[in-house]
Amino acid sequence: MTKPMLKDLQLGETVDTFLAVSQKQEKKTKNQDPYLYLRLADASGEVEVNLWKEFADVFPQIQEQSVVKVRGALSEYKSKKQFNITQIRPAAPEEYDLGDFIRKTKKDIPQTLQKVKDILLTISDPDFKKLTDLFLADEKLMADFAKAPAAQNIHSACIGGLLEHVSAILDLALFVAEQYHLNRDLLLLGVFLHDIGKTRELDYAKTTFGYTDEGNLVGHINIGLEILQDKIRQLTDFPAQKKNLLEHLILSHHGVPEFGSPRTPLTMEAVALNLIDNIDAKLVGFQDFVERNPPNGSWTAKAFMFDNRSLYVGPKVI
Amino acid sequence: MTKPMLKDLQLGETVDTFLAVSQKQEKKTKNQDPYLYLRLADASGEVEVNLWKEFADVFPQIQEQSVVKVRGALSEYKSKKQFNITQIRPAAPEEYDLGDFIRKTKKDIPQTLQKVKDILLTISDPDFKKLTDLFLADEKLMADFAKAPAAQNIHSACIGGLLEHVSAILDLALFVAEQYHLNRDLLLLGVFLHDIGKTRELDYAKTTFGYTDEGNLVGHINIGLEILQDKIRQLTDFPAQKKNLLEHLILSHHGVPEFGSPRTPLTMEAVALNLIDNIDAKLVGFQDFVERNPPNGSWTAKAFMFDNRSLYVGPKVI
Amino acid sequence: MTKPMLKDLQLGETVDTFLAVSQKQEKKTKNQDPYLYLRLADASGEVEVNLWKEFADVFPQIQEQSVVKVRGALSEYKSKKQFNITQIRPAAPEEYDLGDFIRKTKKDIPQTLQKVKDILLTISDPDFKKLTDLFLADEKLMADFAKAPAAQNIHSACIGGLLEHVSAILDLALFVAEQYHLNRDLLLLGVFLHDIGKTRELDYAKTTFGYTDEGNLVGHINIGLEILQDKIRQLTDFPAQKKNLLEHLILSHHGVPEFGSPRTPLTMEAVALNLIDNIDAKLVGFQDFVERNPPNGSWTAKAFMFDNRSLYVGPKVI
Amino acid sequence: MTKPMLKDLQLGETVDTFLAVSQKQEKKTKNQDPYLYLRLADASGEVEVNLWKEFADVFPQIQEQSVVKVRGALSEYKSKKQFNITQIRPAAPEEYDLGDFIRKTKKDIPQTLQKVKDILLTISDPDFKKLTDLFLADEKLMADFAKAPAAQNIHSACIGGLLEHVSAILDLALFVAEQYHLNRDLLLLGVFLHDIGKTRELDYAKTTFGYTDEGNLVGHINIGLEILQDKIRQLTDFPAQKKNLLEHLILSHHGVPEFGSPRTPLTMEAVALNLIDNIDAKLVGFQDFVERNPPNGSWTAKAFMFDNRSLYVGPKVI
Amino acid sequence: MTKPMLKDLQLGETVDTFLAVSQKQEKKTKNQDPYLYLRLADASGEVEVNLWKEFADVFPQIQEQSVVKVRGALSEYKSKKQFNITQIRPAAPEEYDLGDFIRKTKKDIPQTLQKVKDILLTISDPDFKKLTDLFLADEKLMADFAKAPAAQNIHSACIGGLLEHVSAILDLALFVAEQYHLNRDLLLLGVFLHDIGKTRELDYAKTTFGYTDEGNLVGHINIGLEILQDKIRQLTDFPAQKKNLLEHLILSHHGVPEFGSPRTPLTMEAVALNLIDNIDAKLVGFQDFVERNPPNGSWTAKAFMFDNRSLYVGPKVI
Amino acid sequence: MTKPMLKDLQLGETVDTFLAVSQKQEKKTKNQDPYLYLRLADASGEVEVNLWKEFADVFPQIQEQSVVKVRGALSEYKSKKQFNITQIRPAAPEEYDLGDFIRKTKKDIPQTLQKVKDILLTISDPDFKKLTDLFLADEKLMADFAKAPAAQNIHSACIGGLLEHVSAILDLALFVAEQYHLNRDLLLLGVFLHDIGKTRELDYAKTTFGYTDEGNLVGHINIGLEILQDKIRQLTDFPAQKKNLLEHLILSHHGVPEFGSPRTPLTMEAVALNLIDNIDAKLVGFQDFVERNPPNGSWTAKAFMFDNRSLYVGPKVI
Repeated sequence: MTKPMLKDLQLGETVDTFLAVSQKQEKKTKNQDPYLYLRLADASGEVEVNLWKEFADVFPQIQEQSVVKVRGALSEYKSKKQFNITQIRPAAPEEYDLGDFIRKTKKDIPQTLQKVKDILLTISDPDFKKLTDLFLADEKLMADFAKAPAAQNIHSACIGGLLEHVSAILDLALFVAEQYHLNRDLLLLGVFLHDIGKTRELDYAKTTFGYTDEGNLVGHINIGLEILQDKIRQLTDFPAQKKNLLEHLILSHHGVPEFGSPRTPLTMEAVALNLIDNIDAKLVGFQDFVERNPPNGSWTAKAFMFDNRSLYVGPKVI
Repeated sequence: MTKPMLKDLQLGETVDTFLAVSQKQEKKTKNQDPYLYLRLADASGEVEVNLWKEFADVFPQIQEQSVVKVRGALSEYKSKKQFNITQIRPAAPEEYDLGDFIRKTKKDIPQTLQKVKDILLTISDPDFKKLTDLFLADEKLMADFAKAPAAQNIHSACIGGLLEHVSAILDLALFVAEQYHLNRDLLLLGVFLHDIGKTRELDYAKTTFGYTDEGNLVGHINIGLEILQDKIRQLTDFPAQKKNLLEHLILSHHGVPEFGSPRTPLTMEAVALNLIDNIDAKLVGFQDFVERNPPNGSWTAKAFMFDNRSLYVGPKVI
Repeated sequence: MTKPMLKDLQLGETVDTFLAVSQKQEKKTKNQDPYLYLRLADASGEVEVNLWKEFADVFPQIQEQSVVKVRGALSEYKSKKQFNITQIRPAAPEEYDLGDFIRKTKKDIPQTLQKVKDILLTISDPDFKKLTDLFLADEKLMADFAKAPAAQNIHSACIGGLLEHVSAILDLALFVAEQYHLNRDLLLLGVFLHDIGKTRELDYAKTTFGYTDEGNLVGHINIGLEILQDKIRQLTDFPAQKKNLLEHLILSHHGVPEFGSPRTPLTMEAVALNLIDNIDAKLVGFQDFVERNPPNGSWTAKAFMFDNRSLYVGPKVI
Repeated sequence: MTKPMLKDLQLGETVDTFLAVSQKQEKKTKNQDPYLYLRLADASGEVEVNLWKEFADVFPQIQEQSVVKVRGALSEYKSKKQFNITQIRPAAPEEYDLGDFIRKTKKDIPQTLQKVKDILLTISDPDFKKLTDLFLADEKLMADFAKAPAAQNIHSACIGGLLEHVSAILDLALFVAEQYHLNRDLLLLGVFLHDIGKTRELDYAKTTFGYTDEGNLVGHINIGLEILQDKIRQLTDFPAQKKNLLEHLILSHHGVPEFGSPRTPLTMEAVALNLIDNIDAKLVGFQDFVERNPPNGSWTAKAFMFDNRSLYVGPKVI
Repeated sequence: MTKPMLKDLQLGETVDTFLAVSQKQEKKTKNQDPYLYLRLADASGEVEVNLWKEFADVFPQIQEQSVVKVRGALSEYKSKKQFNITQIRPAAPEEYDLGDFIRKTKKDIPQTLQKVKDILLTISDPDFKKLTDLFLADEKLMADFAKAPAAQNIHSACIGGLLEHVSAILDLALFVAEQYHLNRDLLLLGVFLHDIGKTRELDYAKTTFGYTDEGNLVGHINIGLEILQDKIRQLTDFPAQKKNLLEHLILSHHGVPEFGSPRTPLTMEAVALNLIDNIDAKLVGFQDFVERNPPNGSWTAKAFMFDNRSLYVGPKVI
Repeated sequence: MTKPMLKDLQLGETVDTFLAVSQKQEKKTKNQDPYLYLRLADASGEVEVNLWKEFADVFPQIQEQSVVKVRGALSEYKSKKQFNITQIRPAAPEEYDLGDFIRKTKKDIPQTLQKVKDILLTISDPDFKKLTDLFLADEKLMADFAKAPAAQNIHSACIGGLLEHVSAILDLALFVAEQYHLNRDLLLLGVFLHDIGKTRELDYAKTTFGYTDEGNLVGHINIGLEILQDKIRQLTDFPAQKKNLLEHLILSHHGVPEFGSPRTPLTMEAVALNLIDNIDAKLVGFQDFVERNPPNGSWTAKAFMFDNRSLYVGPKVI
């Protein structure tokens, strides 16, 4: 049964649904009565709720990052939605679908994954081909790859975000490799692997994204290197030069040390990867920002990703 | 009649040809005899020459940046070419073709220019179309546009370099505009105009490239703005918003103030232009550097454009 | 009739006056009754007002940046002024004088403008003189020049601020030009024009200052360049060198690219302009900051313009 | 038989010895006679030699980085040593001891290695102990560890330099771990491993130090990570947390991204490692610089490692 | 009689005690009744208090930075302590011990001071010895030295903090001086004096730490220089070189101009002092931050001193 | 008797004169004959000299920074002066006037000094007046002040340069103090003292300028502070606030820590001093650079002081 999503609720209609607790604060009224302030969300939106003292016995059971089952009705005051709750209880994991609570890419995941695989299967260099096959055969890794977000907050911060990001860069890579006579196989493999460490850097199994301990202590670039080296070790006679070139692509894809790359790009393919990665990140990041912060006029709020400046979005020129 | 080019000379063969004086130093031998040290070049290469005292009466007539007519023969000692001169005199402008002395793009200039025009003619927004037509009809400007280098020293520093650069970015622009749903007409026009100021910033009428006074005092970004505004003034009712968006594209295409852009990119198209401009500049710059500094092994000399690092070029992976 | 200004109101006295709405927030009381929180201002000060539900029918008519007519009385609680409103309605533009709502320079505007003109009329170089005459004859531009603020928030952010700023720098310019034997005419004209683009960069026709779209997308430096070039085009035979030197003065007056100047100063006059501009900006900015943030002791609050540090203001030494 | 070392030669005495060719240039005399300019070195010093045309048939056999057998006598002109050669030929690898040509640490290598092992053997945490044992049992790695330089040019750029550096930091680590109650075992292991990647980053098998391709493309920090992970893979149940903490120590030991560390130190031990590594590098670097650039007075030449400033070395205070 | 400290209070128990007013805000209830919001603290902790209108007549007597005598009882609501006050009045200086309100080092001050003196008394160079004796004989200065905090907010921000900091660095200095053959006497004296200016830079006579006017206008580095020069002036024939070396140690101990050092370290001892100062500051700063911001899991809040990153603190590895 | 100055020599005329040895290199001819290459200078210019083997016995007596007596004649080859020496010997200090060898300000020193004193004597604040009198009464210091250069190489690097610099800034200070209502006495005293430490930072007693040990280890800002404090100590009851404000002026006059100022300007007067100091340094530095590097066309060589850019110097606009 599909869960009623927040964005589909009609004003006044009473529903039973599941919501994730994205924030919880214990407060007190003027009369010193305790109450809970909650932000409840699903993948489609978010509401603020005050839980008064008549619910006091469930207060301790409600935890951030957990999911609750609620009955309530939506009202709206001025421009802000309110959700008036009449019943609330913690929900058990088997009752709900985690995917209902996390932003998901608008792309079709299986279809996009197939497209990525199809492109990778065109790699013809025998060594790179063997390596690619090993990756594609690793079902656990490919499942994570198809699920991981591309970032915690900025561009493509959604389930399937990494896949969506890699898919878009592969298209750019095919175009650029031909226009500038790059080593196509090396570049394609580099695109596929450059952010593969994000499958372990981010924690996307909960209702909001966070960093794993390994993510904080080691980082996705170095995790990605280990994932690559683990696969290469399974191949006999993989040439050292090709190994180093692939490692270099992962290590240098942020372009400069200040952005986390321990190496700056020193090959044509590394220079290209850094730039096309940047194109997708910036253009998708621009669109995401505008979508999440719909401007009230021609200028958006200040966008952190763009040097903390307001972006210009209209009116449409044509 | 085609001039014998340096790179085609056979050892020992005596030729009559024209060469540009790229450097001239007055020196003295141990015996205090004056002699001239010269670097003589054409578009295909360069030789060093010592002009001994028997030529003393032509010394004052030989100027840097001028062209001389010489008779001589090529010899080689170890890995260095030498040119032994038996006759030398200043050449008059009508005797030689300036183009023989300056590096020229490998692309076919008329063909590339036609391709650029064809793409620009697909612009459909009525205002942008009228503006494009004005530009295409300005024969003097289009001739300069087809001739100007893209830079003094780095990427595409050759006659036709600007055209070659714009042509390559237009291809990227078409691809990116479609992939990310950008305003195609605005982006195409921005690509065409972003470096148009280089037609006046650089002096490419002499035998080596230099900056004009206007180039040093004002710079190509602001010269480009004036060129755009001069055209717009000839149109009635060109919308202010479109004017500002075009100006913004030119002003912001270097991305950040530190690289000379008085504005950072604030529209999707400006973000895209900055990045695709960068792709062409970096990848062509990489190839140019390797070509001019052929490495003796896997690593090149230190490349100023790449953070002063050696670049990796070989052995070929596949 | 002169409008009663906020700073002149006596406690308890009931007045009818006009006030600009500088901020408006829709809120709700504990009882879920809607009310409006407003900041109402005129050029002399600001008060906070809560508008309770008895005024609910005028809520939608009250817009930020608009002007309202109010009847009320000033009270004070602790150190904060309160304004208790008994009547409120939107005001029509013809009812009030916009000047009553915006900070105005303390200088006499016509007198200062005359002084600036008098100095400019001493320019003797024939080309610069013709150009100056064109500017002085442009009544619309001179009116804007006399009205525009010098900044949105920092130094001289008031009607007439640009004029006040230019007037002060002219005095410095006369002194410095003589002490260091600079080209006096060039420097004077540069001072007059360096910020002329602010007449279009800022929007000072509303009750608070903001940036125009052109201001954000193009910026006052490049707008200023266009204004200069528009005038020069009307002159025949204006020497290219003098045009470039004037353009260079405008382009380089912020000193370094990081502060928005696409050129660094390369002439004596450009070096001087950057420094004397800075003197007026910093010293007036210091005084303004102290005036707006009167310190409670010897040290002010942290001043953004001064590297976010507290400034020392007393006790007076002598 | 011990090779006669350059620094022991007496003026005028004729010797047969082996010397490494650190530099070779083909030149011509005024008469156009070819000759070779050579710099010949062993671990104790260097001499300049001109090889005149009577040796022309051995010219092609003399390569940079190779070793030659020479007969000659030392003379001195002013403050510069000269070596006059009467016989010269390439030497075969089995004729000489490579160690005679490369700077070696002044410490006793086996003794220092034993000291390092003794300290590591005091590690008591069972997981870290097992890991340490694996490392100590890897004879190839430990041999490289005892041989590798700590840098190409700066501090401890000599055979045994890495060992010398690690040994000194271990002493600091023991002291600091106790003073600040750090996790002693974790820190000791981190000190041992922080530069272990230098065993593959640098090429110290030739007569001068250089970077390997892997060193340039991947870098010692990431090579070190792979070496660590290879060992951990051989252990069952090594806790993920301890793995990540060790990885973090290696990754963060340069302190900031600008110095090549993809992570900044986030644990007490990582903060400590970065600082004590720095102490040894800076103080040994200071001493090395002064030794190699003995100052002519109280101030040295400009030291690149110290912000390009002259260092003060005397006269001795006490 | 010892004052009851906040951290020792039992819930519900009524006590009479003294507390410092660290913050005071005048507020109003919904009913427009004035009340005071106070933060009251002693060296062991802090509580928030609302003072309702029944205390209105003491409102004006309660000042920030002053001490009050209160009767009240501790209650706790959720995770926050509350202190319900029944009596409150300003306290006279002679009633309380200032030390009860300021964080004090955990070290025994007299014992640590003795240890510092003992180390300084081992200085054997006759000039440095005479100078040391002058310092140790200055009772006022030594008392301040034993009392001053090492910083306003970060590491060792407590009474005795400077002493604790110097004592720890002296231990490091003894170790490092021996390991690297430094001038031990010079380094010890430098450690003792490097922060001596903090005795006048900070105001630690009140209930919270602040900067003195001299601290803000001159800074501890230059105050320290004056203190040193005042003592040297009392000695006849103190060698200029030794004076300059000591001055250099004080001036350069922050390492780089960006951190406030007008000189970068140019002697071995100055290099060492900068680094060991850093070790103590960073490691104690880490521990302090964790202690004051006990993390809720493995990661702390963002630590300003560590590049604004979360620090990793557990679970304990061993 | 006045020494014949280099710039006054006629070609071919034989003279006896004194010259300072600014550079000396021992060289060998092709025939292995030793010879000396010398640069000999006086305040008016410089010549290059080769001293052949017939002078071999005086070689060891000729030292850099010393003065020699020579007999010789000037010849010119192409654009370079040559001085052919027939006699040379070391000169004794009593034979020559040191002033003949060092660049001196073009201003009249006694007259400029008197002007400075006259301005300082207008200081009316009683404390500042007493302090000023103490300075003016210190003959040794005032003599050094009138003699010291303002810099080693850049602006006003000549005897009297400091005086010339202070004199110019005093004029600016008088103007700015009045225009912006600054504390005139404080600012004047600050201008006088801001670089007073240069009297000990630079060594201007030899034939070329250098840094003293104190200059390198302590720096002129901190030396200046000591000079100020030495004087204040002689006054009873000089107010602490005024002392701190004067110290702050000296400490902050470079504006930012990166340029050597341990404090940033926090008072109106400190802000003003930093800016007017900059005006004189930049404009005089511009003029000096052009004078020493007369450009061959409109653009100079690259000027280190101006961000390493070429400066534009002509043709004259008017």
